[in-house]
Amino acid sequence: MNEFQIRYNEYLAEFEKYLQEYAAKMVTSPTILGDSMRYSLLCGGKRVRPVLALACADALGLDKQEILPFALALEMIHTYSLIHDDLPAMDNDDFRRGKPSNHKQFGEANAILAGDALLNEAYSICFRECAKGEKYAVVSAFLNECAGIYGMIAGQSADMQFSEENRELTEEDLFYVYEHKTGKLLLAPVAMASILSGNKSYLALEQFGKLLGKLFQMTDDILDVTGDFKALGKSIGKDETENKWTCVRLYGLEGAKIRAAECAMDALAILEGVEGDVSFLRDLVDYVLKRSN
Amino acid sequence: MNEFQIRYNEYLAEFEKYLQEYAAKMVTSPTILGDSMRYSLLCGGKRVRPVLALACADALGLDKQEILPFALALEMIHTYSLIHDDLPAMDNDDFRRGKPSNHKQFGEANAILAGDALLNEAYSICFRECAKGEKYAVVSAFLNECAGIYGMIAGQSADMQFSEENRELTEEDLFYVYEHKTGKLLLAPVAMASILSGNKSYLALEQFGKLLGKLFQMTDDILDVTGDFKALGKSIGKDETENKWTCVRLYGLEGAKIRAAECAMDALAILEGVEGDVSFLRDLVDYVLKRSN
Repeated sequence: MNEFQIRYNEYLAEFEKYLQEYAAKMVTSPTILGDSMRYSLLCGGKRVRPVLALACADALGLDKQEILPFALALEMIHTYSLIHDDLPAMDNDDFRRGKPSNHKQFGEANAILAGDALLNEAYSICFRECAKGEKYAVVSAFLNECAGIYGMIAGQSADMQFSEENRELTEEDLFYVYEHKTGKLLLAPVAMASILSGNKSYLALEQFGKLLGKLFQMTDDILDVTGDFKALGKSIGKDETENKWTCVRLYGLEGAKIRAAECAMDALAILEGVEGDVSFLRDLVDYVLKRSN
Repeated sequence: MNEFQIRYNEYLAEFEKYLQEYAAKMVTSPTILGDSMRYSLLCGGKRVRPVLALACADALGLDKQEILPFALALEMIHTYSLIHDDLPAMDNDDFRRGKPSNHKQFGEANAILAGDALLNEAYSICFRECAKGEKYAVVSAFLNECAGIYGMIAGQSADMQFSEENRELTEEDLFYVYEHKTGKLLLAPVAMASILSGNKSYLALEQFGKLLGKLFQMTDDILDVTGDFKALGKSIGKDETENKWTCVRLYGLEGAKIRAAECAMDALAILEGVEGDVSFLRDLVDYVLKRSN
C-alpha cells in the first residue's frame, strides 16, 4: 500500500468508528425503521465524501472532531439519496454497494421511510452543532443548500426531466446535472472544512470541490461502460440500455477519458493556490481519475 | 361568524400571506420541482398546525414574527409527509385536499422528490433562524425530533408494521401510533411557542399539545366513518375497507365519540393551569372535537 492508501484507510477507519457508534445508538421503535436505516448506512462503500471532509480538515489545520458530525450528516444525506434514487419509480436499481437495494430488502414503503428518516436524522446532527454558535449554523445551512432545491435535488429533478424530454442534450445541460446531482455533495465537505477552519483560500477550495465533483461523475459515466459489477457493487451498462445522456455519449469513450483527465488537471492547478498541506488532496484527484469502483 | 372563527381566519390569513411570499421566491430549475412543491403546499387546507403556532404565540405574549418561520417549516414537513404517505407504495391515496394527490398530478418520481425537497427546505428555514442564537437551535432541534425517528416517522413506521402483522391491536399500540404519527406535529407548534416565549407553563403546554394531537387523530378516525368526501377532500371509508385499526374499530363509533369527548375535557382541564390568554386554545379544542373536515 502506498502512502495515499494508508492515509485513506486511516480517514476511513476514523469515520467508520464515529459512524458505528452513532448508528448503534439509533434505537428505534419499531426496530425495522432503525434496521433499514443501518442496512444502507453501514454497508461499507468508499465513503469518499467523509474521507474528503477529514482530509480537508487535516490540510487546513482544523481539528477533525469539528468536522466529524458534519461528515456523518453528509454521508446520511448521500445515503438517503441513493435509497430514494434506487426506488422503482426513480432509477429502479436492484443492487447497491454489492447488496440488494433498500427496497429490495425491506419493501418500497419502508425504503421511502428509511430515506426520509436518514435525511431528517442528518439534520438532527446539524441542529445539535448549531447550538454551539453561528459558525456551525452557517456550515449547516451550506450543507442543507448543497442537498436541497438549489443543490442535489435540483440535479436529480433535471436528470429526470432530461430523460423524459428525450432530446439531444448539450454540454451545458449535462454539466448542470453533474454540478448539482453529484457535484454539490462533493463540494460540501471541502467548503464545510474551509468555513470551519476560517481558511483564506475559500474560493479556490470551492472551485476545487466543484471540479472534483465533475470528475467524479465523469468517471462514474466511464465506469458504467468499462467497469464490472463485482468491483462497483451495482448494475453496469444501464446508461446505454436506458439511452441516458452521459459524457461518454456526448464525447465518445476516448473523448470522455480525455475530458476527465483535463478536469483532473484543472483541479490540481487550483490546489496550487491553496494554503495548507494539500498532498493528500492531490493524490485523491488521481485516485478518482483512475478509480475502478 | 363567531369570535373563534374570526380569529382563526385572521391567523390563517397571516400565515397564508407569509407562505405565499416564501413560495413565490422558490424559483427552481427545472420548474417542475418548484411547481410540484407549490402544488401540495399551496392547496389550502385548514393549516391547523401553523394556526395553532400563531395562537400559542398570542396566548403566551410572543411576537408572531418569531414563530412564523417555524410555523412554515412545520407546514412544509406536514406537507412532505402527506405527499409520501399518499404514494402507491404507502397509503395509495389518489386525492388530497380535494385535488389529485401529488403523484397523480406529477408522477411518482417527481412526487418523491417534491417530498424530499419540502423536508429539506423546511430545515433551510430553520438553519437561517439558528444563526440568531442558541434558543433558535433548540426550537429547531425540537421540531426536527418531532418529525424524525423518535417522532412522526416512528409513528408512520409503526402504523405500517401493525398493518403487516395483521393482529389484534391493543389500546397501547394504537395510542403509540396516534402520539407519534399525528401527535408530534401537533405538539410541535405548542412547544415551539412555549420555548420561544420562555413561558413557565412548558410542561402543561406540552401535555396540552399531546392531548390535542390525540383528539385530532380520534376525530380523523371518526370522520373516516361519518364524514363526506366533499368536506374532507380525501377518500373516506378507507380504514374499514383496509381493515385498519382505529379507535372506531377498538371502541365502536359511539365509544370512540365518548373517548374523543373525554380527551377534549382533559385538554381543557390542562389549559386551566397555563399562564396567559388561552381562550382561543379552549375554542380550538371544541373546534377539533366537532370538526367536519
